[in-house]
Amino acid sequence: MPSLLIRNGLIVTQNPSRELIAGSLYVCEGRIAEIPSARTGADQVIDASGMLVIPGLIQVHVHLCQALFRGLADDMNVVDWLRQRIWPLEQAHDPDSLYASARLAIAEMLHGGTTSACTMETVRHTAMAFRAAEEMGFRATIGNAMMDRREAGTEMVGQDTQAAMAESLALLGRFHDSAGGRLRYAFCPRGTRNITDSLWRQVVEEARRSQVLIHTHAAENQAQTELLARSGGREAEYLQSMGALGQDLVIAHGVWLAPEERALVAQAGATVAHCPSANLKLASGVALIPEMLDAGINVALGADGAACNNNLDMFTEMRHAALIHKPRCGPRAMPAQTVFDMATLHGARALGLEREIGSLEAGKRADLVLVRRNTLHTAPSCLADPVAQLVYEHRASDVETVLVDGQILIRDGRPTRWNEQEILDDAEKQIRRLWERAGLAGAGAVAEGTGRTER
Amino acid sequence: MPSLLIRNGLIVTQNPSRELIAGSLYVCEGRIAEIPSARTGADQVIDASGMLVIPGLIQVHVHLCQALFRGLADDMNVVDWLRQRIWPLEQAHDPDSLYASARLAIAEMLHGGTTSACTMETVRHTAMAFRAAEEMGFRATIGNAMMDRREAGTEMVGQDTQAAMAESLALLGRFHDSAGGRLRYAFCPRGTRNITDSLWRQVVEEARRSQVLIHTHAAENQAQTELLARSGGREAEYLQSMGALGQDLVIAHGVWLAPEERALVAQAGATVAHCPSANLKLASGVALIPEMLDAGINVALGADGAACNNNLDMFTEMRHAALIHKPRCGPRAMPAQTVFDMATLHGARALGLEREIGSLEAGKRADLVLVRRNTLHTAPSCLADPVAQLVYEHRASDVETVLVDGQILIRDGRPTRWNEQEILDDAEKQIRRLWERAGLAGAGAVAEGTGRTER
Repeated sequence: MPSLLIRNGLIVTQNPSRELIAGSLYVCEGRIAEIPSARTGADQVIDASGMLVIPGLIQVHVHLCQALFRGLADDMNVVDWLRQRIWPLEQAHDPDSLYASARLAIAEMLHGGTTSACTMETVRHTAMAFRAAEEMGFRATIGNAMMDRREAGTEMVGQDTQAAMAESLALLGRFHDSAGGRLRYAFCPRGTRNITDSLWRQVVEEARRSQVLIHTHAAENQAQTELLARSGGREAEYLQSMGALGQDLVIAHGVWLAPEERALVAQAGATVAHCPSANLKLASGVALIPEMLDAGINVALGADGAACNNNLDMFTEMRHAALIHKPRCGPRAMPAQTVFDMATLHGARALGLEREIGSLEAGKRADLVLVRRNTLHTAPSCLADPVAQLVYEHRASDVETVLVDGQILIRDGRPTRWNEQEILDDAEKQIRRLWERAGLAGAGAVAEGTGRTER
Repeated sequence: MPSLLIRNGLIVTQNPSRELIAGSLYVCEGRIAEIPSARTGADQVIDASGMLVIPGLIQVHVHLCQALFRGLADDMNVVDWLRQRIWPLEQAHDPDSLYASARLAIAEMLHGGTTSACTMETVRHTAMAFRAAEEMGFRATIGNAMMDRREAGTEMVGQDTQAAMAESLALLGRFHDSAGGRLRYAFCPRGTRNITDSLWRQVVEEARRSQVLIHTHAAENQAQTELLARSGGREAEYLQSMGALGQDLVIAHGVWLAPEERALVAQAGATVAHCPSANLKLASGVALIPEMLDAGINVALGADGAACNNNLDMFTEMRHAALIHKPRCGPRAMPAQTVFDMATLHGARALGLEREIGSLEAGKRADLVLVRRNTLHTAPSCLADPVAQLVYEHRASDVETVLVDGQILIRDGRPTRWNEQEILDDAEKQIRRLWERAGLAGAGAVAEGTGRTER
């Protein structure tokens, strides 16, 4: 593997003292070998003049399989959103459409500086998500959704308990810790009550045995949270009773976690995946993130799915996370450094990869991103704080170069491993077929030809 | 003036039936002559294949003079933000720094598809903002801030009443309706109580006589709103008592307008400029926009200043406007079409230019923007609603070509009339000088060299 020198950048290290280093960084065997580095040459040299060099951003709650549904479920009531769109479309996925969706999602994320994600797929075809991540060089912790119990509002075809477990175990065996450790498996009970107690207990036992993550949704929506509480107690308490609350648990959303539940989550060292755009768009609410951080919860960020965002853009999520809590908590709440920590260090901790990624330090994997500084929307920058600029000013389109494991996946804004137009064309082709398979062609919600929603 | 054919686009007309037209648009003498057009040629032809053709976006509350302050006032208490940053920096502006700031702001807005803005400058050097807009081809309604009264929290040097009026009248005479009607003047009492009753009465009289807008801040911040209410009544009631409430009034923010005040504003036909990013970042609150729209208020959008946003990006403001009200009002509140109307038609009405701009219809001025559709973050688009895509998915970086009055100001992402690097270099040079003139060099808030905020 050729050595690599990235020189003349302004390096936002995210090391314990949050140092900024104007200088060079040397990469060897996929890891950061020297920072700063006094070297003047290497097998490959990238000039980062006028760039910020930042740790790859880490999203801890994404649905790759929903990228194809982008723009097909806007301004809808949540129940309609699930019943008329998400369930039928997920169930109509075939391997080709899943692969197209995953490739689109991964390409979008990498171009926006996201180098790793923790993703929950649908109940089938999850091998295709691994295949896309493997080929594209993305770092991912991926799981097959588990749903062996039907709940009100869940019209998704239920799985047989043992079949659900068998599918996860097969994927775990095949993909966990593959591609040099770049790909990992996570058990994904879809929501706290989408699986039976029996399956929860098996999941916890297997997850601990195999040392893999558990990734679930909890307390996203007020009505659903209250319904579940009436039928069997609060969700974090339920998770605790199943033995699921631990450092290996990623809880998506947590908007409606009660104070006692937040204390449980903090005590367990579990992660809450804050998804601000999705929580706003589905009107789920505004999670009490400042309180969670004060309580010591590891809060990280995610875009959720393109069906409820509609982008998979970590710059957008950082900006939202910094802004939406201020009206309630004041202008000094959620300062830029806190948010950037959530997007990097907290994400790494969520994935159990805090010794591998999340900051630019010697020995860590070379997952890093070069961000162009010289833009109209970030100027002037001579007196500004680069971290505040990353959170409040920069955009995904400022990302120039992206490395994972020291491999250059995007260089000067262009992908090195895939053909973007092929991904775009395949997305169009596959969504047309998927829409028909889902029986939505006659639904009348979308007018073919103009693309205009009829209203 | 050469004729122009824009062909093969998907035209988002914003006409009364909100038609989408797959076809061509013919521009003659700076106005839309035919839409759709069957012509096959013209003096100039732009191929808009794979593009949306949309009306130029209109921002109704911007401070061009604050673009240079971007990144210098983040995560600050509002009082500190004003006293330690905005007042000292505005007062230290000289003609060169004002010009640099205005050029930077206008270039950023045009590249993001904003073709018109209603702007409030500082108390001096406003001629330089007109000069920048004139040279760059931007459509702008610009005013010199008026502040002849000191209020708690306002440390800005007060102006003499007659001098303030004289300055505005001189600028009005020199610039209003200049550049073929592209540049207009607006009286800008900085806030409802920043000017004396006497000056308000003169402003209203002169504004009505000259048929120009009045642009002011009101009910932005809860504490200030309550303070003002205690000392002399609610702000909209005060504006009414001064005779200022009318169709020619643009009220920035209006976050804390009481229900009775909203009724007054609606009845008068005045505009509220909703500035979601700025209201979040300064923790001002979330304006009751759905209620204002229901009451019939003309709500339009603005980015406010780069010191409290930190971008001047209408795509970001549209997305925020669509998202931030949903947690309170439900997922169907603020649908994409409503938000896009605010960004176009409502903006035109705010400026009194509803017969000239805001939609793509025959006879209107050719202020229009081509937006690239074939992107990873908007794919797949074959079944999507382009208006929802504009609000939830597209970014400023998707803007390819921008016309104002039929003049091509940006073509394929590149400016035709100015050198971008010159604008960027001048911004860096001018902010260094301004920072010193403002006496902030020793303030210690920003560490030179790394640009790192010390904390």
